Amino acid sequence: MGRLSGAGDVTAGRTFRLRVAYDGTEFHGWQVQPERRTVQGELERAVRELLAGQEVRVHGAGRTDAGVHARGQGASFAADTRLPASALGPLLNRRLPADVRVTDAVDAPPGFHARHSARERHYAYRLLGADDVLWSRYAWSPQRRLPTLSALREACAPLVGTHDCSAFQSAGSSPVDPVCRIRRADWESWEFGMRFEVVADHFLYRMVRTLVGTALDAGETRDPARSMAEVLDSRDRTRAGVAAAAHGLCLEAVRYEEGMS
Amino acid sequence: MGRLSGAGDVTAGRTFRLRVAYDGTEFHGWQVQPERRTVQGELERAVRELLAGQEVRVHGAGRTDAGVHARGQGASFAADTRLPASALGPLLNRRLPADVRVTDAVDAPPGFHARHSARERHYAYRLLGADDVLWSRYAWSPQRRLPTLSALREACAPLVGTHDCSAFQSAGSSPVDPVCRIRRADWESWEFGMRFEVVADHFLYRMVRTLVGTALDAGETRDPARSMAEVLDSRDRTRAGVAAAAHGLCLEAVRYEEGMS
Repeated sequence: MGRLSGAGDVTAGRTFRLRVAYDGTEFHGWQVQPERRTVQGELERAVRELLAGQEVRVHGAGRTDAGVHARGQGASFAADTRLPASALGPLLNRRLPADVRVTDAVDAPPGFHARHSARERHYAYRLLGADDVLWSRYAWSPQRRLPTLSALREACAPLVGTHDCSAFQSAGSSPVDPVCRIRRADWESWEFGMRFEVVADHFLYRMVRTLVGTALDAGETRDPARSMAEVLDSRDRTRAGVAAAAHGLCLEAVRYEEGMS
Repeated sequence: MGRLSGAGDVTAGRTFRLRVAYDGTEFHGWQVQPERRTVQGELERAVRELLAGQEVRVHGAGRTDAGVHARGQGASFAADTRLPASALGPLLNRRLPADVRVTDAVDAPPGFHARHSARERHYAYRLLGADDVLWSRYAWSPQRRLPTLSALREACAPLVGTHDCSAFQSAGSSPVDPVCRIRRADWESWEFGMRFEVVADHFLYRMVRTLVGTALDAGETRDPARSMAEVLDSRDRTRAGVAAAAHGLCLEAVRYEEGMS
């Protein structure tokens, strides 16, 4: 370790791309905040410990909120080290708490940035069909009647395509292009309920959770697709539903040009 | 509350049957132990708080080990109260920590006992196909190659029937009849791996976890069914596999004559 990561090993700066999984329950989200336990904070501390005190900024593809999980968050950082990229995952995991894991690490081209270089994000949102003390850590049980799977599918079909999604954006984030290219917006059944699978080039603040809340409303109407389309076209956040709870959401994968998922 | 549960309300003793769900992660198992957080201990404390200090013993259908979960544990207790049984669940849940929930409560006949009156237990054991920081709370990732689903199915087919299951019993429990009537012993795929579903009139100590470990071994042999049958017939614990980890196991349901599941 000392031989590989000591101060004498400084080489030209390198850029690394990580895939990161975490159980968001005990984190105050991705982004570093003073005095708060965050995923970014834990990763930056682990890199610092591994690389002889180098202070790095670890960028994430999605700045997940408190309580949101990830199976395939994309992350990147630049640092000076001769460590092979394949060794980074195991070495960082020894320095990370059990609820965050680096599941892959590769060399990335100079200038690679986990957020700016991402081409698509894939999120899944899990609803529970009934209260369940076990799976309630990773799925949400809305205290209301659930629409049928087919009604939820109908409601979300109009989302596929390129749209101004301002109606589904919550206040409080830095400004991003409200036009999203949504490639998939489908519902599947899973063992304990229903799951929303959505893939887009980028998402607005709280967009996935607001889409789920809106789909629950639209799915109860006579014409779910029309109800959703009306909200979408309005670009008016007050027309959309209440955001679903954070803990049902999971960032499943991030796709980069080079094919990482 | 005072009107319903105060000391003035004592009636003839009644027996209640509960269905209980818990996340076993933070419990030292079901059974009361001094200075340890157990499910039985939490339930007895909640009943005492609700029923004006009545000290009751809450019996469970299965004395699950530390780390084992339950979605449908059966429990019973006798107490003096005029509370309607249907009110017990919500009232107890207010006095219970979030990782244990009473999901049903009914009046039971005098002499009903959650363990002795149980007719069948249904356990599920979840294997992860790959390490997963999220689902690793409720499923086990053996650090070995997994047999195919069909090999695991073949391995467990000989278990169905009435057998002396001593080969799968760990030391350390009170003596029970080693002859178990196994009605189902099947493997299914689930979202992140494979799941063992087993239903029997009763189980021996650590039997389900030992069956899973033995199935993993037998599934790698040329004749999985024969390998399992040889272990079963030997009645020799040293022939069986290593018990699978506790956290993959969940007591799904308990069936009583009256039909509770």
